[in-house]
Amino acid sequence: MAAVVSIDPRTGQPVEEVAQETTTAQVDRLCAAALAAAPGLEALGRAGRAALLRGLADALEDRREDVVAVADRETALGPVRLNGELTRTCYQLRIFAEVLDEGSYLEAAIDHAGDTPMGPRPDLRRMLVPIGPVAVFGASNFPLAFSVPGGDTASALAAGCPVIVKAHGSHPATSQLVFDILAAAAEKAGAPAGTLGLVHGVPAGAALVAHPAVRAVGFTGSATGGRALLRIIEQRPDPVPFFGELSSLNPVVVTPRAAAERGPTIGAELVGSFTLGGGQFCTKPGLVFVPVGADGDAVVGAMADAVRGSAAPVLLNGGIAAAYGSIAGSLVKAPGVEVLARGAQPQGDGFQAAPMLLGTSASDLPQQVTEECFGPVSVVARYDGEAELFGALAEIPSSLTATVLRGGGETELPQEVSERLRPRAGRLVYDAYPTGVAVSWAQHHGGPWPSTNSQHTSVGTSAIRRFLRPVTWQGAPADLLPPELTDDYRGIPRRVDGVLEVPR
Amino acid sequence: MAAVVSIDPRTGQPVEEVAQETTTAQVDRLCAAALAAAPGLEALGRAGRAALLRGLADALEDRREDVVAVADRETALGPVRLNGELTRTCYQLRIFAEVLDEGSYLEAAIDHAGDTPMGPRPDLRRMLVPIGPVAVFGASNFPLAFSVPGGDTASALAAGCPVIVKAHGSHPATSQLVFDILAAAAEKAGAPAGTLGLVHGVPAGAALVAHPAVRAVGFTGSATGGRALLRIIEQRPDPVPFFGELSSLNPVVVTPRAAAERGPTIGAELVGSFTLGGGQFCTKPGLVFVPVGADGDAVVGAMADAVRGSAAPVLLNGGIAAAYGSIAGSLVKAPGVEVLARGAQPQGDGFQAAPMLLGTSASDLPQQVTEECFGPVSVVARYDGEAELFGALAEIPSSLTATVLRGGGETELPQEVSERLRPRAGRLVYDAYPTGVAVSWAQHHGGPWPSTNSQHTSVGTSAIRRFLRPVTWQGAPADLLPPELTDDYRGIPRRVDGVLEVPR
Repeated sequence: MAAVVSIDPRTGQPVEEVAQETTTAQVDRLCAAALAAAPGLEALGRAGRAALLRGLADALEDRREDVVAVADRETALGPVRLNGELTRTCYQLRIFAEVLDEGSYLEAAIDHAGDTPMGPRPDLRRMLVPIGPVAVFGASNFPLAFSVPGGDTASALAAGCPVIVKAHGSHPATSQLVFDILAAAAEKAGAPAGTLGLVHGVPAGAALVAHPAVRAVGFTGSATGGRALLRIIEQRPDPVPFFGELSSLNPVVVTPRAAAERGPTIGAELVGSFTLGGGQFCTKPGLVFVPVGADGDAVVGAMADAVRGSAAPVLLNGGIAAAYGSIAGSLVKAPGVEVLARGAQPQGDGFQAAPMLLGTSASDLPQQVTEECFGPVSVVARYDGEAELFGALAEIPSSLTATVLRGGGETELPQEVSERLRPRAGRLVYDAYPTGVAVSWAQHHGGPWPSTNSQHTSVGTSAIRRFLRPVTWQGAPADLLPPELTDDYRGIPRRVDGVLEVPR
Repeated sequence: MAAVVSIDPRTGQPVEEVAQETTTAQVDRLCAAALAAAPGLEALGRAGRAALLRGLADALEDRREDVVAVADRETALGPVRLNGELTRTCYQLRIFAEVLDEGSYLEAAIDHAGDTPMGPRPDLRRMLVPIGPVAVFGASNFPLAFSVPGGDTASALAAGCPVIVKAHGSHPATSQLVFDILAAAAEKAGAPAGTLGLVHGVPAGAALVAHPAVRAVGFTGSATGGRALLRIIEQRPDPVPFFGELSSLNPVVVTPRAAAERGPTIGAELVGSFTLGGGQFCTKPGLVFVPVGADGDAVVGAMADAVRGSAAPVLLNGGIAAAYGSIAGSLVKAPGVEVLARGAQPQGDGFQAAPMLLGTSASDLPQQVTEECFGPVSVVARYDGEAELFGALAEIPSSLTATVLRGGGETELPQEVSERLRPRAGRLVYDAYPTGVAVSWAQHHGGPWPSTNSQHTSVGTSAIRRFLRPVTWQGAPADLLPPELTDDYRGIPRRVDGVLEVPR
């Protein structure tokens, strides 16, 4: 097996050997340990797992400086962003503790025995139970919030499922450090051995997805990577659920009134959004519809000015940098595409990339501009009238987000645009930018293929439901029921004989 | 294209030509019509779709005699069962109207803008929206409740999704009649043209699953059939969700105390359950664990007596009859399996099958007895002590149900058995039999692969969630929000700033 090496993206040079790639035999042992841990993790109960999640958050915060330093060295995302990401990650762990305290997520329902229009009904009691060990694939672009301690891990542990994380090769040292912190905190919180596992290397990831003990897979990454894992799952004797977040273009529509009222501001803000984090957000606005004419020119002019003043960000790894060079290079050559502005050029040996603004016409959108390109590039598509805009919107793929920038109080065109964008997006953003995803009860970070392949994803409280499955107890004596399904239990919302009852 | 012929299973002879197989071009037109109908169906709103579902139920009941007569002629299930199934089907349509009235299924959540521990949060409002046109595959064994007017159709229409049903080749005349009834009732209720479609023939089913307009597939049938549809979906550029109910063994454990207290009764009731509907229920008890010794002998003796007194049921179609012959034939020859009793032998040319009771030892379960066999056969596995029972339970595949028959007030062994069965089943049945599935809020009819491939299935009110996906509106002006997400709306339960609020 090969060594797992941590690389500094600012220099492109290896810095340290973190581990050896995990062997298939080691994967097998971790999976067996996870399976063995499952009953104990469930037996901790909602209160025990809430304490576990809070303990993980506290432990991570206690080591904030160490974690941010290693992550910055490995990702070049900078301490401001990484401190924010760590805060968000801890918040995410804690909000799932709240989800456990509140208890709605169990979807507890009791139908007492009785007559119905379809005949007599036995006593039926239903709630959700943990699905079993979950494999989580860390993402390159969020070394914390979508990696070892991220939303998949937090929601799976909350559900009562042991987690084995495949560390992303882009930040193995961060993954190992955070794993060590979490594993120690989990033990301290009374979680069974095997509750958390970590593997390194692509072969170990493949072995993990194929392992009989693994009952679900959470993945954030490329459509190509997601398809490869799906193929492994399809070959299992028991295909398990795969929850993938894959690819997103994130269209933005600037209405003529918005352009007229605040074109230059919008232009500058759009560049801020698409160059944030080196343009390596799944919610990066990759295609911006701007009206033709002077007001639209002002938007595009401000965008070009901002791009020209942009530094060349350091990308996360050599693979992303190479893909950026190749995809952006082919975008530039696509028919009908022109380069509107370039930012600073790369200097030195690191994985730097030059920001770019490209332009095209909405009347005949080149296919290349409808595909996600990771990195600091965005395409402006100029539209001449609503018919041309609507025609272009009908051709773009589904995304995690779709954004409408409106004039003050404008509703008519935004309504028309929203109707066309809603089938193609999981979040409709108004008068703001799609980057930045709050974790909350009402958040959704998903959308039809290719943005995700599932209805629920790793962000927001509904992430937990991916790792639960329903069980109904029919005619069970009270001592064989989970406490939440006994008649006298009052701690959580339940649906009793069809009526939703909330504890007061 | 070939003619679609309705066959009488009592004679094995063709009775009438129902239709021609649907061509690919016709599938395409139906899918386009379904896509075009989607916005109008959603625009009916919850009240409009509740009225639609009640209208469908009323129309079906108005034609009860005709429907039961055609279905009996095509399935040989008999008027008592079919009248019950029609009643259940109408109840199922109406309970989804209740689900719409109640409104929890939208999972409406509002997080107002404000500060959080992870920083300022924009206004976020989330609810579920229809996923788009749904393809539904009718099942052979429920010509109504799991076919054209079944749970998949009811829940998809409730969600706001147009439905195209692939008629099962076993009951094309019933499918066509019921479709005609529903289509007329849907038009009367104001549903847009294209809300319902029907296709005949295997090629049309394949074209349907591959069609770009189809956004989800609901299927009840064999594991082989489900795998074939999954392969088509995997080849789509945009793999869509597949909700399949595939195969189920439905183990039953008779405890020693249960055998001692009421062995003969249990034996007779078990035969009633596994021969019901010709043994063609997905919840048929296919493997029964009975203790060795005299008490267990009494259970098995009663089973054998009941089987010897059983008539030979007419199976649904020639394919099922042939498969029964071949699978039961290989079961009989499996090592360690003996024939304990046979019922009446088939007479005449129809698709009759002889009931059979087989026996084996739990100490070394032959692999063949752990696979579903459609038809009037069940296997008794005798166990000698708890260790042998637990060892055998560890080897059986997952099922829709698992049943424990206990002694009066017995909890210790039932608890141990339940812990081992829960990971392998979606419904735990106590002191009753798994056949017969009530439709209710607390029902669940699913389980890990191979019983289903999804967390939620077509029975019970949570079936609706398969055909919905979340959308979050961020910073949306009130007039661009769905009514259910506006501040002043009070008609449904909503989670507001994390707190579940139920209308009083």
